[in-house]
Amino acid sequence: MKIANDTAILLAHCPDAKGILHAVTDFVLSNNGNIIKLDEHVDEDESHFFMRVQWELSDFNIPKEKIGEYFETLIGQKYEMKWELHLSSSKPRVAIFVSKYPHCIYDLLSRYESKEWNIDIPLIISNHEKFQGLAERFGIPFHYFPISKDNKKDQELKEIALIKEHNIDLVILARYMQILSHQMTEAFPMSIINIHHSSLPAFAGANPYKAAFTRGVKFMGATAHYATVDLDEGPIIAQDVFPISHRDSISDMKRKGRDIEKIVLAKAVWAHLNHNVLIYKNRTVIFD
Amino acid sequence: MKIANDTAILLAHCPDAKGILHAVTDFVLSNNGNIIKLDEHVDEDESHFFMRVQWELSDFNIPKEKIGEYFETLIGQKYEMKWELHLSSSKPRVAIFVSKYPHCIYDLLSRYESKEWNIDIPLIISNHEKFQGLAERFGIPFHYFPISKDNKKDQELKEIALIKEHNIDLVILARYMQILSHQMTEAFPMSIINIHHSSLPAFAGANPYKAAFTRGVKFMGATAHYATVDLDEGPIIAQDVFPISHRDSISDMKRKGRDIEKIVLAKAVWAHLNHNVLIYKNRTVIFD
Amino acid sequence: MKIANDTAILLAHCPDAKGILHAVTDFVLSNNGNIIKLDEHVDEDESHFFMRVQWELSDFNIPKEKIGEYFETLIGQKYEMKWELHLSSSKPRVAIFVSKYPHCIYDLLSRYESKEWNIDIPLIISNHEKFQGLAERFGIPFHYFPISKDNKKDQELKEIALIKEHNIDLVILARYMQILSHQMTEAFPMSIINIHHSSLPAFAGANPYKAAFTRGVKFMGATAHYATVDLDEGPIIAQDVFPISHRDSISDMKRKGRDIEKIVLAKAVWAHLNHNVLIYKNRTVIFD
Amino acid sequence: MKIANDTAILLAHCPDAKGILHAVTDFVLSNNGNIIKLDEHVDEDESHFFMRVQWELSDFNIPKEKIGEYFETLIGQKYEMKWELHLSSSKPRVAIFVSKYPHCIYDLLSRYESKEWNIDIPLIISNHEKFQGLAERFGIPFHYFPISKDNKKDQELKEIALIKEHNIDLVILARYMQILSHQMTEAFPMSIINIHHSSLPAFAGANPYKAAFTRGVKFMGATAHYATVDLDEGPIIAQDVFPISHRDSISDMKRKGRDIEKIVLAKAVWAHLNHNVLIYKNRTVIFD
Repeated sequence: MKIANDTAILLAHCPDAKGILHAVTDFVLSNNGNIIKLDEHVDEDESHFFMRVQWELSDFNIPKEKIGEYFETLIGQKYEMKWELHLSSSKPRVAIFVSKYPHCIYDLLSRYESKEWNIDIPLIISNHEKFQGLAERFGIPFHYFPISKDNKKDQELKEIALIKEHNIDLVILARYMQILSHQMTEAFPMSIINIHHSSLPAFAGANPYKAAFTRGVKFMGATAHYATVDLDEGPIIAQDVFPISHRDSISDMKRKGRDIEKIVLAKAVWAHLNHNVLIYKNRTVIFD
Repeated sequence: MKIANDTAILLAHCPDAKGILHAVTDFVLSNNGNIIKLDEHVDEDESHFFMRVQWELSDFNIPKEKIGEYFETLIGQKYEMKWELHLSSSKPRVAIFVSKYPHCIYDLLSRYESKEWNIDIPLIISNHEKFQGLAERFGIPFHYFPISKDNKKDQELKEIALIKEHNIDLVILARYMQILSHQMTEAFPMSIINIHHSSLPAFAGANPYKAAFTRGVKFMGATAHYATVDLDEGPIIAQDVFPISHRDSISDMKRKGRDIEKIVLAKAVWAHLNHNVLIYKNRTVIFD
Repeated sequence: MKIANDTAILLAHCPDAKGILHAVTDFVLSNNGNIIKLDEHVDEDESHFFMRVQWELSDFNIPKEKIGEYFETLIGQKYEMKWELHLSSSKPRVAIFVSKYPHCIYDLLSRYESKEWNIDIPLIISNHEKFQGLAERFGIPFHYFPISKDNKKDQELKEIALIKEHNIDLVILARYMQILSHQMTEAFPMSIINIHHSSLPAFAGANPYKAAFTRGVKFMGATAHYATVDLDEGPIIAQDVFPISHRDSISDMKRKGRDIEKIVLAKAVWAHLNHNVLIYKNRTVIFD
Repeated sequence: MKIANDTAILLAHCPDAKGILHAVTDFVLSNNGNIIKLDEHVDEDESHFFMRVQWELSDFNIPKEKIGEYFETLIGQKYEMKWELHLSSSKPRVAIFVSKYPHCIYDLLSRYESKEWNIDIPLIISNHEKFQGLAERFGIPFHYFPISKDNKKDQELKEIALIKEHNIDLVILARYMQILSHQMTEAFPMSIINIHHSSLPAFAGANPYKAAFTRGVKFMGATAHYATVDLDEGPIIAQDVFPISHRDSISDMKRKGRDIEKIVLAKAVWAHLNHNVLIYKNRTVIFD
């Protein structure tokens, strides 16, 4: 799927009921929208309806700035929908938080610079100076906020201000080794993606590779999830796993884990940037 | 690997030291044993040595019944080894515990009857009568021990007696839906294999599919492990995983899970039957 | 997903056009059908539309035997649709062909007898007598048709007659080691599922494990596909893979392969039995 | 496993015979070498022996420059061994060939610059100017050799000269979109690693994603192999696969494939750099 240039993307979910899909497609078609992608899902266990519909705006009768209002009036309120509307013409603005591990930040910057992702990265924030030079070489302003027990709250407030000032759509924690406090996660709900180096809920918290080694598991993994107030408990966007055996030392597990971490993080970011993610009851529906 | 017909299999582990491998191979070779398979492993994090060596007995100078004594005297005590010696000529004797789920018991009996596994199954034990007919059709004595809160201890004692009476080498819990009490797990240490329907340590305990659905994970799995006094905490022998998405209902997860469960259980049983498993600090080394 | 008891399942595909989905859902809803599952897919590379819709028949205005006619008249011909209509009330009738390998036949019969699958198996056909006893123990008539170069055509004609006589919906080749001639594959188009013991198109033809060993690949697999006139070239329904290494002998590969073969075959059969499969240009769309 | 600093690594293979392992470990131990890693493998189908042994050189009795001579005299010739000796103290020198795809070259340079790999990259060679700026930013000399039908042979001769002049140990084809001629592959046997964007032997040659789409497979993959005179036929070092469905367009497959390609290539390079690879009859033994 490409990020098309002049389309609307509607993400919506509501209690399941007869005729929802029909009503939404009718809204688009009767106003001369050309649907280019439609996905729907009914969670049978929860009796809940989810959909993503993308349509071309070139001949659409409702002006861009009015689509949301019309949709809510004609469809949304009737079905008690929660919905978001996105325009593919707007280029996502991304901030990266990083500490000292290079694999994720390098991978993200590579995708950015090589135009694999069509995004802007107006800032990189770090609690270490290590990647200042890297940021500069990729032409991205680098903001150094050293974190201590005492200054954490204040430093975060500055970071929040910076993120707001730059109209950031998505914050990526690229193995950022600080636990965000509630003020941060609450300021950007479902807009901060973290990568955890285990297959959650297994081995939440610190040092999962050591814990996995001790438990003697035969698979390890990585999990990309939205950061919420509950550490490692936010909605999971993407996971992947890899087999391990007695032949893998902790060092081997870390090495193999790095490759999975960066790929899983990128997969989650891609899903978010393409507006493929719906969230309901701490679970995600990922339309791909 | 086939279960060869007249070979000795030595499983051993000890603190790592210079020359262990050399000493063991010397023991075999200098007594005219022909090594047909040798695997060794050094756990670098623990500095611990593991090995499995299998050799033909036809021209071996030490008589079968003396190999253990000689090995301990000449090698074992020197290196503070823990070791087991197995003769491939002895056919493993297996007992199966089952409740009401058919997928694992059918799979095990199929492998038995079709000679995929060269084993004897002298008894099937169940807390339900459901599979009595099945057992009879496969020609295996079926023992029905209904379990209640009150009779559990006594029924288990009868089961233990039966297992001992039949010289059982391995007990397989084929989705046996009772928690074994300590008297049982302690009676047959590292000789009871359980299949748990999640990728442990994630979703230990009851109803892992519901828990996984609620957490919104993108992978589920199954784990075969030795049953110990700590529920779902014994050494893991085999695991496998499968991807799930929002499209999978709990019912879909159960359906897909059944296929993984029976395959993972069989994989673990195979490893045990072929004496490929070494245990150290609640972890397994699986030589395959 | 369960095989619901009184529903209609419509599988349809046609060149993509505006409003198809809308038209089909309108057909169901306006006639008082309650949609319980809807999946659609647009192949963007081919600009082709696919859908599967399942709805409850209890209050549906059009009588069962007229649904097809009405659908064709009102919707099908307009969009140049190819479509099939299935009623979940009809129990699928399955025939199994087998030679000498036990793993797939045992697995299929286990799923049948344990009611994992709600099907009838009125006949097992084999070119060997090996599984006569097995069939009898599962209460299924066994038909022995030894095949030689000379009698193949005639024996197949008898098999075809038998299949037709028993109104078979699906023929499963459970590692049947004979190549079907054109008269057979043409008699039952897209109704014969074969399991091939490699990840097609790699290692088509005889002895894929030996070929894989020689080529030194690091993954092997299994492929379930519809049997067509072109050997190993029919539409692929399901595949799975497993890692191999230098430690795997050909015998190890065969052992691991057996487990994958039976699971992949079962997965494909499940998809077919639940009417989840659409075929277009030798490719499948599998709605799950 | 880390690339230790003063160790010898011996890779050897020979027809299987009694006592080889014993003889090699004896060679090391009796000369006061401390074995830190030992792997051995017997290919039972071929009756061929493989081993990798790594030992510390600090107290080793035989001087570095004489180890090879002594080993050949005392052990190698006796068992008709093919063997290589590597010193971990020597830093591998790597050349990268690239055309226009960014994902592999970015990934390789990231691992280099972040010290994930302890290597030197004295040159990047390309038939396009696209990555000149990138190479310069990473401080690596960039050599532009445009290739046409007419100049190919001459340009390759210049490239060969450059590689020899820089004492390159490994050439990585990072999605280099030119077929190397025989003079090139023969100049650097088992020293050129290519990444092919399919799970070989499936979909060899050009445009595997299109071919996979047309065939309707349910898995795609990537293969890293040594480049030999036979295109896409060299010994396979690493492979990985990913599931695809009808929902994946060719564009989706390419996107997902890129992530697998770069990881598989890196995995193969890691194995080569750590001297974990043995080759026999166009197959690899990978000790990890």
